[in-house]
Amino acid sequence: MSGSCHGVVFRVQTWGESHGGGVGCVIDGCPPGVTIDVAAVQAELDRRRPGQSALVSQRKETDTVQILSGLSLRGVTLGTPISMLVRNKDARPSAYSELTHLYRPSHADFTYQAKYGLRAESGGGRASARETVGRVAAGAVARQVLAARWGVEIVAWVQRVEGVDVPEGMIDEGMVGASDVDANSVRCPHPETASRMEAAIVSARKDGDSVGGLVRCIARGVPAGWGEPVFDKLEADLAKAMLSVPAVKSFEVGSGRAGTRLRGSQHNDAFVPGPDGLPRTRTNHSGGVQGGISNGMPIRLCVGFKPTATIFVAQDTVNESGEAARIKPKGRHDPCVLPRAVPIVEAMTAMVLLDHALRQRAVSF
Amino acid sequence: MSGSCHGVVFRVQTWGESHGGGVGCVIDGCPPGVTIDVAAVQAELDRRRPGQSALVSQRKETDTVQILSGLSLRGVTLGTPISMLVRNKDARPSAYSELTHLYRPSHADFTYQAKYGLRAESGGGRASARETVGRVAAGAVARQVLAARWGVEIVAWVQRVEGVDVPEGMIDEGMVGASDVDANSVRCPHPETASRMEAAIVSARKDGDSVGGLVRCIARGVPAGWGEPVFDKLEADLAKAMLSVPAVKSFEVGSGRAGTRLRGSQHNDAFVPGPDGLPRTRTNHSGGVQGGISNGMPIRLCVGFKPTATIFVAQDTVNESGEAARIKPKGRHDPCVLPRAVPIVEAMTAMVLLDHALRQRAVSF
Amino acid sequence: MSGSCHGVVFRVQTWGESHGGGVGCVIDGCPPGVTIDVAAVQAELDRRRPGQSALVSQRKETDTVQILSGLSLRGVTLGTPISMLVRNKDARPSAYSELTHLYRPSHADFTYQAKYGLRAESGGGRASARETVGRVAAGAVARQVLAARWGVEIVAWVQRVEGVDVPEGMIDEGMVGASDVDANSVRCPHPETASRMEAAIVSARKDGDSVGGLVRCIARGVPAGWGEPVFDKLEADLAKAMLSVPAVKSFEVGSGRAGTRLRGSQHNDAFVPGPDGLPRTRTNHSGGVQGGISNGMPIRLCVGFKPTATIFVAQDTVNESGEAARIKPKGRHDPCVLPRAVPIVEAMTAMVLLDHALRQRAVSF
Amino acid sequence: MSGSCHGVVFRVQTWGESHGGGVGCVIDGCPPGVTIDVAAVQAELDRRRPGQSALVSQRKETDTVQILSGLSLRGVTLGTPISMLVRNKDARPSAYSELTHLYRPSHADFTYQAKYGLRAESGGGRASARETVGRVAAGAVARQVLAARWGVEIVAWVQRVEGVDVPEGMIDEGMVGASDVDANSVRCPHPETASRMEAAIVSARKDGDSVGGLVRCIARGVPAGWGEPVFDKLEADLAKAMLSVPAVKSFEVGSGRAGTRLRGSQHNDAFVPGPDGLPRTRTNHSGGVQGGISNGMPIRLCVGFKPTATIFVAQDTVNESGEAARIKPKGRHDPCVLPRAVPIVEAMTAMVLLDHALRQRAVSF
Repeated sequence: MSGSCHGVVFRVQTWGESHGGGVGCVIDGCPPGVTIDVAAVQAELDRRRPGQSALVSQRKETDTVQILSGLSLRGVTLGTPISMLVRNKDARPSAYSELTHLYRPSHADFTYQAKYGLRAESGGGRASARETVGRVAAGAVARQVLAARWGVEIVAWVQRVEGVDVPEGMIDEGMVGASDVDANSVRCPHPETASRMEAAIVSARKDGDSVGGLVRCIARGVPAGWGEPVFDKLEADLAKAMLSVPAVKSFEVGSGRAGTRLRGSQHNDAFVPGPDGLPRTRTNHSGGVQGGISNGMPIRLCVGFKPTATIFVAQDTVNESGEAARIKPKGRHDPCVLPRAVPIVEAMTAMVLLDHALRQRAVSF
Repeated sequence: MSGSCHGVVFRVQTWGESHGGGVGCVIDGCPPGVTIDVAAVQAELDRRRPGQSALVSQRKETDTVQILSGLSLRGVTLGTPISMLVRNKDARPSAYSELTHLYRPSHADFTYQAKYGLRAESGGGRASARETVGRVAAGAVARQVLAARWGVEIVAWVQRVEGVDVPEGMIDEGMVGASDVDANSVRCPHPETASRMEAAIVSARKDGDSVGGLVRCIARGVPAGWGEPVFDKLEADLAKAMLSVPAVKSFEVGSGRAGTRLRGSQHNDAFVPGPDGLPRTRTNHSGGVQGGISNGMPIRLCVGFKPTATIFVAQDTVNESGEAARIKPKGRHDPCVLPRAVPIVEAMTAMVLLDHALRQRAVSF
Repeated sequence: MSGSCHGVVFRVQTWGESHGGGVGCVIDGCPPGVTIDVAAVQAELDRRRPGQSALVSQRKETDTVQILSGLSLRGVTLGTPISMLVRNKDARPSAYSELTHLYRPSHADFTYQAKYGLRAESGGGRASARETVGRVAAGAVARQVLAARWGVEIVAWVQRVEGVDVPEGMIDEGMVGASDVDANSVRCPHPETASRMEAAIVSARKDGDSVGGLVRCIARGVPAGWGEPVFDKLEADLAKAMLSVPAVKSFEVGSGRAGTRLRGSQHNDAFVPGPDGLPRTRTNHSGGVQGGISNGMPIRLCVGFKPTATIFVAQDTVNESGEAARIKPKGRHDPCVLPRAVPIVEAMTAMVLLDHALRQRAVSF
Repeated sequence: MSGSCHGVVFRVQTWGESHGGGVGCVIDGCPPGVTIDVAAVQAELDRRRPGQSALVSQRKETDTVQILSGLSLRGVTLGTPISMLVRNKDARPSAYSELTHLYRPSHADFTYQAKYGLRAESGGGRASARETVGRVAAGAVARQVLAARWGVEIVAWVQRVEGVDVPEGMIDEGMVGASDVDANSVRCPHPETASRMEAAIVSARKDGDSVGGLVRCIARGVPAGWGEPVFDKLEADLAKAMLSVPAVKSFEVGSGRAGTRLRGSQHNDAFVPGPDGLPRTRTNHSGGVQGGISNGMPIRLCVGFKPTATIFVAQDTVNESGEAARIKPKGRHDPCVLPRAVPIVEAMTAMVLLDHALRQRAVSF
């Protein structure tokens, strides 16, 4: 009901405020018998944490994860809830004190106040990007299960920053891997474009401003049959997962928005016999999903992030009494969320895919 | 678990195959004490049904709704499940017999077979657009409750067909209403563009081909406070609802994909005092949602539909044994689903909004 | 949220009022590929329906089921929602008109009014036992799936009516079957006791009064491993299912209430090697469930039903304005619900067991 | 899906093994704006913890709760998830090493192995009573919300131990309070009976044996209108909650099993005008619930607990290979769980009632 729980079988409950005692999650419904590499979970958190490069917020958090339950002494999942905890270290509630009575534009201060009748005294509370720690930890578990059981591989990268786009055909979506993505701090696997993206981010930061862009995500190795028509179609749950990530404004699967300009004769994906006897499609405008169910081709997504709302520029706003005011935030921020969004998009993709893998098991024979 | 149920409080269970005994839905969780105008429910079904104009499928269905439970003798909701039934009249299972062993490209034949191990002997079964009858009936109830309790008004229209787009500024989103939309059979409230869209559809039909496009949807009068962070954000549930509609490939809220090219200083929505003392925003790049919660401004969505998969053109495919084959469908189809998609998009929007209105009631005091 | 939906994977949504257009259910999540014997579904409804013997209500309903979706032309489940409809034939709304403004004692008139602010103008609405039609239809499908996939067999019978109890040891719980139970109209497989029970019921009816009693239920062939600790333990979901049946006041599993008088050394079920290498228990005080999970032994339940609230005796009550009044109902009623409760208890048991069977599949490898 | 989550609106996710890093819970859906008395939460945990008296297990745990999120700096609920953590201090995994390959009779060792394919290397894992820490913490929050918003008061006590029962009429159910219950270490508010119960427990402990009994629970001040027919009736959810508590074998509401011996004319609760104009009932055989909905009278439950399975007596069992073996456990145990079960029964009652209070808000106007 309250929305801090994700999934049906692989259920992830996240918790934690930006400036409270910590953040974390509980996974209920992880299959038993899977050996979890805790270092790999930590590595995903490291990809998400602030301070990892000059391009992102300088808040100092080691984001060290503690796994409190759900694993045997040998690190094997017991099938019971997995509780993970990350303590907040560099919370600075006082930095926000002057903002307490002003609603920051395009932030969630006003809407949280309107919804709950009160809000955390400092920082963004649950609306802070710090909330995504629990998602990344849970997603890191999910991708290990997906890899171990089905050989699924999930890779996301930054496709565009502001107006700087990867030129058509420069990324081989069948091959691109995490090491290509993490080769630079922008997380764009095309080095020349990455340099130009970095320049765009640095320029925005210099102006106290921010930029947005696109993250693309591919999941390879998903077998045919995942997804639950008619409301819980695979692409529907992926869309929801992505739109639940802070700052996301658009979602596309397969041919996406551009595909709506084609004719059916151009857009239809012809079936051809695959090497294993299963059908493949010649093109993949469907993005790996047909009728809400995976078809064995790679899942292809594109997610749009708006420019960060926190900017160090004076703006019109109102205070809690509804009176006009001016605001000019200070402190730490990300001039561009996209490099840190890459592991979050991957985590959400993993959570959705594993959930549907397990849902499919429930009814298939 | 199986995905034919939508919502948390206002739960809609749909059922029915394209060529079975009928289609319908059961609503569990409709608030008691609301007088339902059954004629208005029927009117929404009439907007969705085939055969309503030359632009859409000529399948002959009156789609007459029977309400079997949940209303008092005076037509007032009892708070108990509302069961609605529409019989299939013009099902022609035999028309599909030759297709039984071929997987139609970009249809769900293969994926249903892969998922369930069998599929309906004829037509698209649950993957047929006929499945949306139950959604439109339930959505028609939802919008009546929303209108009666909160004065919410939902309007969708066709914004683009293939490459034919409504010119910037030609539709007043604050004023456009259902009568403007329904003034022509394309359901585009800008008459000149509607004519050009109609021509594009007719041209595609002549070629046995199909076209896609964009539907825009606005919800006015939504109060601040609806939406459940962090996973069930209002825009996340709207995205899921839209991607669950057959043929949808993209979703955007507020500034959408285009907004990802702006800088934060351009994109942020400055707050200004509203006439009622509540904050308004000067622009609405947020699309009426901030931090996953409605902010009192209009909700603004844009939904992309691919060209219809059913085309009367020879295409490569495979049969159930995995062998290469050719297919050239015959029969009835929609060369463009967008005119009929308008009431579906409105229905899904209504279902999501009412569900969140009721969810907000559960925890607010 | 609203409570007319049962189960997690095998979800049953029931609908319908006592005197509306009909009653029915939609099953979402039935596994595909199971051939359904529709006559067997009808047979269960026949066991539940009024008018089947002199001991029960004489309302005239054939309770003929129509299956509107979810089955292939050959009667095989498609994995899509199964919609089932039973029309009301002998609804007599006018018979209740004089009761409209009086709250019948130990009925749900007052509580429905308090909860919903209005209630069905006639009869018990959703609180009527007629609501259980949908349960029995869904349960009949569930038991067919359980029998086909796992060989599970469910048998319930009337164990006690008022003070008339089956003597200890007179029923062989390992062998008793449906034909033993249905050999008499009381549904007690011990004929001598059945005769005495019948006399007790007839005596109560003569007095315009009613009696209650106990139903016992056994499920044989349930494999070890079903049940989801800690909240959705198998016995917990069974308890909930039984307490959701109209008129139920008590639930016991295994040794039940009597077992709470034993010492641990008497109550513990010693393990012994079973013929198939799996452990068996020497006694079955656990009732087939340990730690919330089935252990391979028969599931054993006992369910207590209060005497029917509808009696033809003058009673004190209040009217809708809160003023004291007298009431003396007329019409049709069951002097004892237990004979008709037997198929309902079986249906609920089947729904719970199949749901847990499928839940177990979701996470096991 | 996996069963460690309770509730629909007030959702409680528990986690933690007996001998892992700790135990705890996350509450999602607690209403905002309620001031939480953390000391009162701790006090409930103190009533549940081992070592509090000579009658219970001597495991040494302070069970100190940390609240990590969901409260403002002033201790007011934010409407966001409340995460609570209790570290394990006196875990002794080695004490169980010799039991690793034996299935303890009437424990969950075998069923966990059968279900998950592995189990925690030591102790009962999730099947240990230690799991109830999270329930008691969450229930303590729920009862504070219930008391603050509706004045609901919940009191449970030990009604019977083995054969030692409180004599009829010795406890005034309208008045009995927590201080009466906690006046002795058995938690029976009738001191003479408490002494006899204590003797029975001590006697069993001396024999290395164990005893069971009954806990009675009353909730006063519940308004009419809570409960969701037809499956989520208030008594159905209470039954499920109670049967989910370790060692529970029976549940009764109102007149319970004994009431099934009465005639309708004896059992029906006549309505009489109440002092506030709302109906009251002269008797309360209904136990405060009619048709699954609270009627404003006290909720009355009775819960049966089997004798503890851990006894220091030699028993027949089998090992993991299915071979016959003998087992004689050593270590720490509760010869009678009932004194510690009292706060657990209260906690579960509070969780169910608050959940339904909030569910009722969602749809009522």
